[in-house]
Amino acid sequence: MTVYDDLMAFQRETEALAQVAGRLGWDQETVMPRGSAEQRAEEMGAMEGVLHARRTDPRLADWLAEAVAVDAVAEAQLRLIRRSFTRASKVPGKLAQEIARVTSMAQGVWAEARAKDDVAAFLPVLSDVVRLKREEGAALATGGDPYDALMDDYEPGATAETVGALFGRMRPRLVALRERVLGAGRDVAPLEGTFGAEAQMRMARDLATAFGYDWDRGRLDLAVHPFSSGAGIDVRITTRVAETDPFNCFYSTIHEVGHACYELGIDPDYRLTPLGGGVSMGVHESQSRIYENQLGRSHAFTGWMFGQMRERFGEFGISDADAFYAAVNRVQPGFIRTEADEVHYNLHIMMRFDLERALMRGDLAVGDLEAAWNDRFAADFGQSVPRPSLGVLQDVHWSVGLFGYFPTYTLGNVYAGCLHKALRLDLPNLDAALAQGDTSPATEWLREGVQRHGGLREPRATIALACGFEPDEGPLLDYLDAKFSAIYGV
Amino acid sequence: MTVYDDLMAFQRETEALAQVAGRLGWDQETVMPRGSAEQRAEEMGAMEGVLHARRTDPRLADWLAEAVAVDAVAEAQLRLIRRSFTRASKVPGKLAQEIARVTSMAQGVWAEARAKDDVAAFLPVLSDVVRLKREEGAALATGGDPYDALMDDYEPGATAETVGALFGRMRPRLVALRERVLGAGRDVAPLEGTFGAEAQMRMARDLATAFGYDWDRGRLDLAVHPFSSGAGIDVRITTRVAETDPFNCFYSTIHEVGHACYELGIDPDYRLTPLGGGVSMGVHESQSRIYENQLGRSHAFTGWMFGQMRERFGEFGISDADAFYAAVNRVQPGFIRTEADEVHYNLHIMMRFDLERALMRGDLAVGDLEAAWNDRFAADFGQSVPRPSLGVLQDVHWSVGLFGYFPTYTLGNVYAGCLHKALRLDLPNLDAALAQGDTSPATEWLREGVQRHGGLREPRATIALACGFEPDEGPLLDYLDAKFSAIYGV
Repeated sequence: MTVYDDLMAFQRETEALAQVAGRLGWDQETVMPRGSAEQRAEEMGAMEGVLHARRTDPRLADWLAEAVAVDAVAEAQLRLIRRSFTRASKVPGKLAQEIARVTSMAQGVWAEARAKDDVAAFLPVLSDVVRLKREEGAALATGGDPYDALMDDYEPGATAETVGALFGRMRPRLVALRERVLGAGRDVAPLEGTFGAEAQMRMARDLATAFGYDWDRGRLDLAVHPFSSGAGIDVRITTRVAETDPFNCFYSTIHEVGHACYELGIDPDYRLTPLGGGVSMGVHESQSRIYENQLGRSHAFTGWMFGQMRERFGEFGISDADAFYAAVNRVQPGFIRTEADEVHYNLHIMMRFDLERALMRGDLAVGDLEAAWNDRFAADFGQSVPRPSLGVLQDVHWSVGLFGYFPTYTLGNVYAGCLHKALRLDLPNLDAALAQGDTSPATEWLREGVQRHGGLREPRATIALACGFEPDEGPLLDYLDAKFSAIYGV
Repeated sequence: MTVYDDLMAFQRETEALAQVAGRLGWDQETVMPRGSAEQRAEEMGAMEGVLHARRTDPRLADWLAEAVAVDAVAEAQLRLIRRSFTRASKVPGKLAQEIARVTSMAQGVWAEARAKDDVAAFLPVLSDVVRLKREEGAALATGGDPYDALMDDYEPGATAETVGALFGRMRPRLVALRERVLGAGRDVAPLEGTFGAEAQMRMARDLATAFGYDWDRGRLDLAVHPFSSGAGIDVRITTRVAETDPFNCFYSTIHEVGHACYELGIDPDYRLTPLGGGVSMGVHESQSRIYENQLGRSHAFTGWMFGQMRERFGEFGISDADAFYAAVNRVQPGFIRTEADEVHYNLHIMMRFDLERALMRGDLAVGDLEAAWNDRFAADFGQSVPRPSLGVLQDVHWSVGLFGYFPTYTLGNVYAGCLHKALRLDLPNLDAALAQGDTSPATEWLREGVQRHGGLREPRATIALACGFEPDEGPLLDYLDAKFSAIYGV
């Protein structure tokens, strides 16, 4: 056993324990009895205590000083372990444990507050979360920007400055596209009617299968806020069902399949090592977005979906594949981020980015958050928020302490735009396969180019290598302009 | 903070982590994707490593030496922590972790071997489990009987000698009762026909409710081998459904509700402490057995059940409550322990006790186990085992390393007999309530007398205090004689 082997054996157990903690999170959001939240919070706190102790174990410093990397993979492993050790060592164990405990509790409080449209019930615990995350950010930043320090957890290398600049470049073209589309005077008929919950779930399963989800190593359940969970050979997805909105169920499923296929597609040699997970949330989101949007909402694939829906649900008021494609991609201002169309989606992110930065800086008090949200929403979307479940209470993220996470959704869209441009060049006949419900040429391209490498390279480098060019917002905005100009004839 | 407080704070986290490990077990047997077993084994191994390190933490020795108990509860906490520390310190960490890893794997191998009736597929991993458990038993026994040392984990104070003597006293009366009943010449009509799986599950839920199961702190799922899982405020149960055998589903459910209500009924002050779990497996089984048999299979309660089944399933070939009562309690030699009637049940345990002692002593090789099982079954039950899923592969226990566990089932029956005698004296009108589907007078008596005390007293003392007399096999055998003599007119 070399020093490197000792280090990796230790790390493997840490990774296994992190999987256990993740499984508890899955349990909490899918199957946990509702009266068990208090105990679960203690369990999560105890797990975080164990993980934090391992991530800051003094032996790591010795091993990292002495371990020798014999190849690029070992080099990357050491780089990621070093990053984790440095980061964890800055956060006091008690704080890490307290964050785990409080956010586990807060999630249940949020879910109930959202169900009851009761912001006041959520604010006290949100105050605790904000306070703890500010403390964590300050500990991590060591003098720098606490928000950057938190974001670095989800997107290594990204900063509020680069993200802000990216958003600044994107906004004018998105707003212009929205104005053109909404001003087109062309009315796209939405999908209407009710669609049985069980039939929706059957179709969701078939869509997951069509996108290559491996049912031997995963499962599909219901959750308030769809998510995917796990790494290695146990990666589960969730979705939600509303009888009047089957697209929500179907596209949430495809989205989570994208995340899950990334994890399941990583080189098996990396399982339970630092390389055995998606490299960043932005790259993760690039997979879920390209599955959901560039592939799942394409003209070719929706043509196949239209046939599937006709077979399962009979006549449903949309008479041809073109009208179905338009309905799937219908542009409409709406309150809910996860239901937003591709034109509006990134505008939702931009307002969250500004609000959460203000919360972390202390420029915005938690008590003023709802008013700030509603003002900003009116300014950006021209509508006033009728109730908090359609506004500030809609997302789980802040309740579980995910500050700095939202920007990765737009980074994911940007990366997906780049990957889509590159894979279309490589796969000129892709539409013929998609029109048959066969996504495999695209998903295999993504597995080869992105997924199998896990955490081997930094996020931007991962995308650049897969694409053959440096990623920027151009391809995404070009794709959106072309797609929605065609649908709306503008 | 006193030394005692420090100790209890540390212990509380250990208990929380033990709950997490237990939840992983629940996950594995109910919802885990089938391709995930290998990773789960590593996760379980890592958790066991963490737990073992905490249970043998050198600080425990110091705290235990210095902590002062201010009352009987604190005394009991210290006694249980000391027992756990002494025990855990005898088992090398690597061995504990290896057992966790191998048994997690073995369980999946067992389930598949059982499904395929393939003993050979199970034997290699069973050999590993037997080898590891013998090693553990030897480490624990420090010169004494390894089997006793293993049994002590499940039933503190019990030994192979006392259990063997108890079984020796019980066997003649059980065999005599069986001969009388089977020789009576009275044919009790069994329940026949098919009963929809969904309707069975609805009735199972209603039966759980009738026995006081708290759905806010639990849930019901399907598992190959029904079990209950968890402590504190998250205690889940499982059952199984076969369309031709609704009693299996119903009584498995009631049985697991008994276990779950024990855990849920413990004084909330004991949650996540050593006192916050059932005191022993035998006492645990006394609760599941009395719920299932003395209450659930009573003439009064089955009268109510008969009405429920008629409402739900219409006519099903049994025309009155007396015939239904007889069908529920029909005595018949059978291969499967968990489906055995009350007359035969303990005979199944006695043969497992002898076989597993022989395995642990090394007198019986794993390769000879199936033959030994089949020979013994023919001798005790007069039937030859047609296939291993009806024989040596039927139980999960040995695959997960539970050697020394089986005797606690019969101890539970003996304790249930004592508790039933005592509660009937205290509750002369119980049958009137049971006949309305109301079990609360009995379940409240059990909660007050047994459940709420958790691990406060030793197992026998727990039962003796609840009953007002020292437990022995007399009440159980008297109850069985009276009940089955009446049903069979012998």
